[in-house]
Amino acid sequence: MPSTPPSRLAFIGLGIMGLPMAGHLLAAGNTLTVHSRTKSKADDLISRGAQWADSPADAAEQSDAVFLCVTDTPDVRQVLLGPAGVVHAARPGLIVIDHSTISPSETRHFAHELSHKQTTLLDAPVSGGDVGAKNATLSIMVGGPEDAFHTIEPLLRLMGKTITHCGPTGAGQLTKLVNQILVAVTNLATSEALTFALKNGLDPQKTITALGGGAAGSWQWNNLAPRMAKGDFAPGFMIDLQQKDLRLVLEAATQSTPPPPATALVHQLFTSAQAAGKGRDGTQALFTVLQHLANPAP
Amino acid sequence: MPSTPPSRLAFIGLGIMGLPMAGHLLAAGNTLTVHSRTKSKADDLISRGAQWADSPADAAEQSDAVFLCVTDTPDVRQVLLGPAGVVHAARPGLIVIDHSTISPSETRHFAHELSHKQTTLLDAPVSGGDVGAKNATLSIMVGGPEDAFHTIEPLLRLMGKTITHCGPTGAGQLTKLVNQILVAVTNLATSEALTFALKNGLDPQKTITALGGGAAGSWQWNNLAPRMAKGDFAPGFMIDLQQKDLRLVLEAATQSTPPPPATALVHQLFTSAQAAGKGRDGTQALFTVLQHLANPAP
Repeated sequence: MPSTPPSRLAFIGLGIMGLPMAGHLLAAGNTLTVHSRTKSKADDLISRGAQWADSPADAAEQSDAVFLCVTDTPDVRQVLLGPAGVVHAARPGLIVIDHSTISPSETRHFAHELSHKQTTLLDAPVSGGDVGAKNATLSIMVGGPEDAFHTIEPLLRLMGKTITHCGPTGAGQLTKLVNQILVAVTNLATSEALTFALKNGLDPQKTITALGGGAAGSWQWNNLAPRMAKGDFAPGFMIDLQQKDLRLVLEAATQSTPPPPATALVHQLFTSAQAAGKGRDGTQALFTVLQHLANPAP
Repeated sequence: MPSTPPSRLAFIGLGIMGLPMAGHLLAAGNTLTVHSRTKSKADDLISRGAQWADSPADAAEQSDAVFLCVTDTPDVRQVLLGPAGVVHAARPGLIVIDHSTISPSETRHFAHELSHKQTTLLDAPVSGGDVGAKNATLSIMVGGPEDAFHTIEPLLRLMGKTITHCGPTGAGQLTKLVNQILVAVTNLATSEALTFALKNGLDPQKTITALGGGAAGSWQWNNLAPRMAKGDFAPGFMIDLQQKDLRLVLEAATQSTPPPPATALVHQLFTSAQAAGKGRDGTQALFTVLQHLANPAP
């Protein structure tokens, strides 16, 4: 029998993802305390009734569930275990939900540290981008104890559409990394195939349509190939951020899994894009790297 | 204004694809002459009213359109230009439709040779496998003159569902190769992602379902990952045949396009599978190669 979800909530990290996610929790009638590195990012939420806290510890002090969505593993470490971190207000029954995409093994370490104070950590990285965050259609991949998952699930449903309990602590992060392997390597398939098509004089629109519905089809082909063909490299998802996730895959692979050759290849090709100043382009700019690979002149 | 399609037809090559395709042409009431390397493959069609011809030239002699579906470029060369090849019965108005997947540049050469006798070649490779051939749901990618395409299109609709005129001679073959790049590299994405998931202890079914609907999704992930997870390597499409198509991609890339690194990687990994005696397994056995990549013992 699921318990009533907590209604005294905190949200830490009000970036492009966190801000709209926190807004959904507030709009549903919960008490919301917020904290972010830049206080001005909280202005809109405060005008709608949220309270400001000067530190993660202060935010946790006044709440029964603490959500966070920051960039990378060191940021989560700072929020949870830093000098003014959540751990200093941790107590029996507090649940912390981490929406950041970070290291699975560090996630297990953070959960262990919080468990000394009977505080539970759920790792709950998301996919679906800023559009999914705004429209509350995110996919949320959750790792951690099943009872805490069931307690928090109604709150996750305010922010996302596909909510999956993936397994124990770290399983949410691992599932997100599987997602990123698929996204990155299918993007490579799309970039390499479209490069071959255009360099051989095929019509891009005919080719995209002819192949989208069969065994060759994918979200990446149907959505990114048309943008590549038009030269539209505006970010849906930015190369710099994707690189962070691929680095996490490659790090995790050194610990527990066989070397992932295709992910390593995409990571290197993206590194070339970054070196050419395209790090803030969308991931579909992988296409431009492949276009510039060249046979030597005869 | 499309002309009436010819009804005196020949079909050469009665393999796993050609036999059901020829059957559809016959069932629609056309006169059908057939030829194959192994005569017994024609028994069923002959019992249903088809006529046997002793050579490709004999088959072409009695027909206004000649379809062929054989394995590789040298087979097509033999059927078209060999000592008893179609070219010896070629004449103004004859249309030859090649459903084999072969070299785009050799296709242009064959078309040029036939053009001396005012015979038109359409390259028309298919995708959809033996199931698509039986159910007449193939995708057919056609290159060649537009008027010949329109003449033959009603006959192609007896065998396929998605019929695309891709461009001039060779464009059908090039589009099929784009299809194979996508299929092969998206299979690599699927294999590498599922390997990472299983080696990290994730539940395969939960992971497959959680990621199938978003930006990570593809036909390969949704259809092949479940078979990989179950250890079901029965061929939908055989590694040995896929390798022929990837070789065509890599050959074409030496002539006209940048080097395709991911296709080259899949080709090499499949070569390992073939060396291990798995060439007649389905392409999803790529997963077993990735599973056996290993970090050295510490």
